[in-house]
Amino acid sequence: MDDALLTDRNPLPDALEERLAAQLGFIVEVDRLKTVLRQSPLAAAGRRENDAEHSWHLALMVILLAEHADEPVDVGRTVQLVVVHDLVEIYAGDTPLYDTVGAATQVEREQAAADRLFGLLPKDQAGLMRELWDEFEARQTPEARFAKAMDRLEPLLLNWMARGGTWQTPGVTADVVRARKSTIAEASTALGEAARTIIDEGERRGWVRPAP
Amino acid sequence: MDDALLTDRNPLPDALEERLAAQLGFIVEVDRLKTVLRQSPLAAAGRRENDAEHSWHLALMVILLAEHADEPVDVGRTVQLVVVHDLVEIYAGDTPLYDTVGAATQVEREQAAADRLFGLLPKDQAGLMRELWDEFEARQTPEARFAKAMDRLEPLLLNWMARGGTWQTPGVTADVVRARKSTIAEASTALGEAARTIIDEGERRGWVRPAP
Repeated sequence: MDDALLTDRNPLPDALEERLAAQLGFIVEVDRLKTVLRQSPLAAAGRRENDAEHSWHLALMVILLAEHADEPVDVGRTVQLVVVHDLVEIYAGDTPLYDTVGAATQVEREQAAADRLFGLLPKDQAGLMRELWDEFEARQTPEARFAKAMDRLEPLLLNWMARGGTWQTPGVTADVVRARKSTIAEASTALGEAARTIIDEGERRGWVRPAP
Repeated sequence: MDDALLTDRNPLPDALEERLAAQLGFIVEVDRLKTVLRQSPLAAAGRRENDAEHSWHLALMVILLAEHADEPVDVGRTVQLVVVHDLVEIYAGDTPLYDTVGAATQVEREQAAADRLFGLLPKDQAGLMRELWDEFEARQTPEARFAKAMDRLEPLLLNWMARGGTWQTPGVTADVVRARKSTIAEASTALGEAARTIIDEGERRGWVRPAP
């Protein structure tokens, strides 16, 4: 972890009021989310997706798919959850869904990242970011469950479009994919069934290995 | 404009229910927003920003900066406006802020793009996308004015971090930048003053040419 902030390279003008300067410094720092690469291949270009693009895509999905949630969700709140959900990866890195080694240290790494990143903000707003992130992770509200479902559905669509994508990760079989994607059905029966249809068809076509 | 949709290359499974299939097809198609390049240089990497990254950044800025709006704004609604605001650029392309030639045909190009893109959705949701986009463009609500202010403030921060960026576009001077950024003050006195401080200091340092 590089200790310097982006604004250390080029500080914002001294004349800015203190609270606003802290907010703008944080807003500059999170530009780094655009450089955190995920495993998922884009559908529209021959490269991997980054976390900022992914977060935007989830936000749009929330707006369009919220009608399929089994419990009513507050769309505006759910969109805020997905906009914030990956911020800690700026310092903790992306932990791929099928990476069991990385998963062992993920919680600890992400907690440290959250303390450092959100600590750049005025205290009340550090709390706000933390609250949104904690809500997403805990999955105790309909909004958080639906946000998490979007987080699982989006790469499924990208893998489909890539005729495999991260489904081809060593050790991954259709059963593993189905187990990981059960999160979708916890928020939406209709979207859970759609995910199942996509995985089953992917398996039939040989884009994901059959269960052993 | 290439007439084929991304899902024409690899259609989603036939077994999906019709309304959901249309929604998912649209969600795949808008992956293209990640390939629409803006002029702004990233602060965190040596490349230009794309529209999906930009839209995500605005969404986060809304959450953190809404307290500075002169009129109270509904944060959830404002976030939805920025998530949707650049979608038409998928087919119409980005029109840079300082491109007066492109600006002449921008409205027409974007209207055609909206018809085509939103037409992929079920009719009620095409209407929803259109409504969000029209609200943003018309700037008649506090939410739309604040969303537009974020759209102007974000590249200002990126230009500052680049010690010039698109401020160095031929024909652009500090007065031109100040005129374009007056949109920020229409939504927030505090952010308008901050923008002014950043531009004035950029001019003092020679990162943007002085008024002729």
